[in-house]
Amino acid sequence: MKFCSECAAPLIVEVPEGDHRPRHVCPKCSAIHYQNPRIIVGTLPVHQGKIMLCRRGIEPRIDMWTLPGGFMENDESLAEGALRETWEESKASVEIEQLISVISLPIVDQVHCFFLANMPVAEYSTTEESTEIELFAPADIPWQEIAFETVKTTLQHYINSVQQSLTKPYQVCNTTLGPRKSDTY
Amino acid sequence: MKFCSECAAPLIVEVPEGDHRPRHVCPKCSAIHYQNPRIIVGTLPVHQGKIMLCRRGIEPRIDMWTLPGGFMENDESLAEGALRETWEESKASVEIEQLISVISLPIVDQVHCFFLANMPVAEYSTTEESTEIELFAPADIPWQEIAFETVKTTLQHYINSVQQSLTKPYQVCNTTLGPRKSDTY
Ligand SMILES: [Zn+2]
Ligand SMILES: [Zn+2]
Repeated sequence: MKFCSECAAPLIVEVPEGDHRPRHVCPKCSAIHYQNPRIIVGTLPVHQGKIMLCRRGIEPRIDMWTLPGGFMENDESLAEGALRETWEESKASVEIEQLISVISLPIVDQVHCFFLANMPVAEYSTTEESTEIELFAPADIPWQEIAFETVKTTLQHYINSVQQSLTKPYQVCNTTLGPRKSDTY
Repeated sequence: MKFCSECAAPLIVEVPEGDHRPRHVCPKCSAIHYQNPRIIVGTLPVHQGKIMLCRRGIEPRIDMWTLPGGFMENDESLAEGALRETWEESKASVEIEQLISVISLPIVDQVHCFFLANMPVAEYSTTEESTEIELFAPADIPWQEIAFETVKTTLQHYINSVQQSLTKPYQVCNTTLGPRKSDTY
């Protein structure tokens, strides 16, 4: 961040009055340009006990398996974002059941949120982002080929919950991962 | 957002190739300037069954009661941000117990996350942001003077959980509120 997005003046970095950390500040129009963590939203789609995974067709982690997910947009809720990303990446229509993981990744300034989702019919198709889509029984998850640690954590948490025969709703896994810069979208 | 923060050129708004919604794009250096929801983090501090609320010393909603909270910063986890905001606004040292609410506010592009927190000793003090701090029994919460809907929702969810004698950990309240533009930090 080098120039003011409001007036184009070169920015300086300083601690604004009343603040406690350095910010990008505009010396001309006084605008303070904050930078904050971004949210990744996705789903863990389940059809008759099997979990839908997508093989990534794009970098990073091309060819590895992931749950559908991506950056939350303005003008949507977490759940709406999760449904949108699921549709965009797999053309699957799923129903949100509950939030199942909320994982902080301070190393990349992201928070990843996944929803457990019911998939009434096994209809999906490959997209530009997903070259292969498959339903996996918990015992068949390709753990060595999972694209992101947050996806692995979410899958493990869900499968543990199922195996312990917990009554729904499952507890939300709330944790912090890192430091692995590569765990970013 | 009018100028490119990387090269100062005037921005245009268009749908980038492969994207699905209009973005602020730089015609000179091709940078795409995304805008994404921001996260508010806070705590619901409990000391011997009483809940700590802070009377706001700043706008918006000056003089109304709130839970300590504010914008999550880069380089921190949700829990770290919640502890930091609690300290900044009340000088209270609390211990995170669990995530208790995750509330989307698409009308203002925010997601509010509150943690249930244990407050071992009733030590706190007013700050520039909080002109008064008090411990309230659930029956004494000043519902008509709560600053934000997300705080009200979080308090109601917690108090309902306690009254129903649920064993901990409590379920996370995951919901979407709006549309009330005033419910912003
Ligand atoms: Zn400026
Ligand atoms: Zn540019």
